[in-house]
Amino acid sequence: MRAALISVGTELLMGQTVNTNVVYLSQQLNLLGFDVLYHHTVGDNPQRLREVIDLSRKDCDLLLTTGGLGPTQDDLTKEIACEAFHDTLELHEPSMKALKESFCKRHSHMPENNLKQAYMPTRAVVFDNDQGTAPGSALEDAGQIIICIPGPPREMKAMYERRVKPYLAGMAEGMVYFRDVMTYGIGESQLETALLPLIDGQTDPTFATYAKEGESYLRIASKDKDPEAAKARVAAAIEQVRSIIGDHIYSTDGGNLPETVGAMLLEKGLTISSAESCTGGMFASALIAIPGISSVFDRGLVTYSNEAKMQELGVRQETLNAHGAVSEETAKEMAEGLWKVCGSDVCVSVTGIAGPDGGSAEKPVGLAYIGLCYRGSTQVFRVQPRNVSRAWNRNKSMLEMFWHVYELLRTLP
Amino acid sequence: MRAALISVGTELLMGQTVNTNVVYLSQQLNLLGFDVLYHHTVGDNPQRLREVIDLSRKDCDLLLTTGGLGPTQDDLTKEIACEAFHDTLELHEPSMKALKESFCKRHSHMPENNLKQAYMPTRAVVFDNDQGTAPGSALEDAGQIIICIPGPPREMKAMYERRVKPYLAGMAEGMVYFRDVMTYGIGESQLETALLPLIDGQTDPTFATYAKEGESYLRIASKDKDPEAAKARVAAAIEQVRSIIGDHIYSTDGGNLPETVGAMLLEKGLTISSAESCTGGMFASALIAIPGISSVFDRGLVTYSNEAKMQELGVRQETLNAHGAVSEETAKEMAEGLWKVCGSDVCVSVTGIAGPDGGSAEKPVGLAYIGLCYRGSTQVFRVQPRNVSRAWNRNKSMLEMFWHVYELLRTLP
Repeated sequence: MRAALISVGTELLMGQTVNTNVVYLSQQLNLLGFDVLYHHTVGDNPQRLREVIDLSRKDCDLLLTTGGLGPTQDDLTKEIACEAFHDTLELHEPSMKALKESFCKRHSHMPENNLKQAYMPTRAVVFDNDQGTAPGSALEDAGQIIICIPGPPREMKAMYERRVKPYLAGMAEGMVYFRDVMTYGIGESQLETALLPLIDGQTDPTFATYAKEGESYLRIASKDKDPEAAKARVAAAIEQVRSIIGDHIYSTDGGNLPETVGAMLLEKGLTISSAESCTGGMFASALIAIPGISSVFDRGLVTYSNEAKMQELGVRQETLNAHGAVSEETAKEMAEGLWKVCGSDVCVSVTGIAGPDGGSAEKPVGLAYIGLCYRGSTQVFRVQPRNVSRAWNRNKSMLEMFWHVYELLRTLP
Repeated sequence: MRAALISVGTELLMGQTVNTNVVYLSQQLNLLGFDVLYHHTVGDNPQRLREVIDLSRKDCDLLLTTGGLGPTQDDLTKEIACEAFHDTLELHEPSMKALKESFCKRHSHMPENNLKQAYMPTRAVVFDNDQGTAPGSALEDAGQIIICIPGPPREMKAMYERRVKPYLAGMAEGMVYFRDVMTYGIGESQLETALLPLIDGQTDPTFATYAKEGESYLRIASKDKDPEAAKARVAAAIEQVRSIIGDHIYSTDGGNLPETVGAMLLEKGLTISSAESCTGGMFASALIAIPGISSVFDRGLVTYSNEAKMQELGVRQETLNAHGAVSEETAKEMAEGLWKVCGSDVCVSVTGIAGPDGGSAEKPVGLAYIGLCYRGSTQVFRVQPRNVSRAWNRNKSMLEMFWHVYELLRTLP
């Protein structure tokens, strides 16, 4: 089956927003076995929206729109979709009830124009929105379907997962099963080169490499009417990959590096605390994003100033004077000082130069040291500086912290 | 003048690549005074490429394509553009020479199929490519122009800057000047309702509202041959908006809320520290993203466990027993305890229930308290729970911290 994605939003045409919705939805529809033929973006303009709907109907079975479902006069997607698919709008009682309840919960008064969001095409399947006020809809006409869902990515994703995906799943001709092999410490092109003998000439399963900020991963996918057959082929391919680059793999179940570390801590019942300088709380924040982590995460100290490093962690003035705040010695004293304060099984520290200023020939921007104290015994690791940007350097240092904790944890029972 | 952007590439339709080209080109064309009406993406398919070209010609003066200029048989953009704009391809001697030289420089032999890249429409203005092998072109027909440039972002940007922008600059009728009015504590539809008398019927400046995660902003734009006139109209409109919703505005120069707070702290020379529970370092991390903040940010403590709250901040056991970790009293003791430890001018704390578990009827998920201690005098604020998701709740609590710090700072000299 063939699909078109239609995005509605002037902010996209102004270049204010990156269209991440079409990335997500293209991936999802491809996994369901749809061929995506078009991405169209138009502003809040009824004629042009209608033009791209009509064009898409020439060769697509499914049209999926995002955006333009808001409460304002500009928001016209539902109206135009309804017109193009020969239906009319009427007040949809359950949507109105949900809308009123959502305003009530927030103790705020519902502006009159919000009521517009509760009008739906009479023949539509209505998708409720548990993340916002605009419901979605699926409307059929002459064997073609138009689905309209909200534009804000959080709402869009939640509605797709909960409501649209199950709705579409029945239509697909064979599901794609995939798993992501998550790696660290190996670049995308190195990964590709290492796996070339395996990838070359393969049609099923397929292999695709992706680079994320500082990490690479490999998606292994297989398509079959029988989901178990696809699953088995992917599992066998993962084992082949593991035999080649096993040391770099930290997860094959979709978890990212912080989630993997969090799950291992919870499983092993080990407590953790952090002392951060250049990353400024990113390590703690990434861990605390994991539900239930409170039983193992004790505390995170962001000791940005030298005073804070001395006062909170007992780093010695002489150490700072002799070696500087960004040094192997300071990283070590931070991790050990943290352990003395809180006694967590794993105490991890970082001190580095995030930039853009503050670097020198000897200590360039991007350099960082990581201290890792496990029950009183401490190792220090150096982060090789690359200095792409302040944000990149901080992210890299944070990932290195997680990676070294991961490497420690996988040696423990 | 009106423009359409056409991206050619199957990898975009598969969701493997984010289309950053259209973000860049939309911004650039808008700044030159073009109205961008469409973004279209198609794969390497001649019929569908032709369809979107023909549709765009209905109401656009300029069509700008990216991608599909490679040496393989699949690459068809130039061929289809040439056909649609009634021209034919012929060998372009300077392009062939450049192509041969580029292979020679790399000491590699030119594959036969690369010669395809040196064939150009006979009437075209040819743009040489100093970053790759595919030249670009601009072709006119019946008063409309189609420009074809390469897809790889590095080549695309370099060619746009060096060749396309000067080519287009003469055509524009006036530049667009805009500023973003950033607000907090007012929803997108409330914002629109409040400003309706101002917005309604306005053609220049134009007003557009946008919602980001937990925040709303208003873009005010004006177009004029005289940039100073556009600037003046936008400035006047900002003052009108300020008279209506001034309390909610925190910036009109593009800075987000953490950046605005960071700049105020630096300007006023006030130091700050934070003690976070549910946000787990997000506040500290957002501040530390600002270059130069080290002169005012002292430390951030992530006191996740009760022990950490008592030990690091001196929160009393009785307070935790009587009122719980998520309470007005605990938030107050956290902020005051932090002030006693570090003496920063502004000490801000947060304690809340991020979820998904841990809520109760009395203290629902999403509830949080913020303590704000300015030189020893403390206020506590309640975050109204809405509980969208763990990530949303944490982000909301972080923004509320920044908002209350902002409200404090704007009352200080």
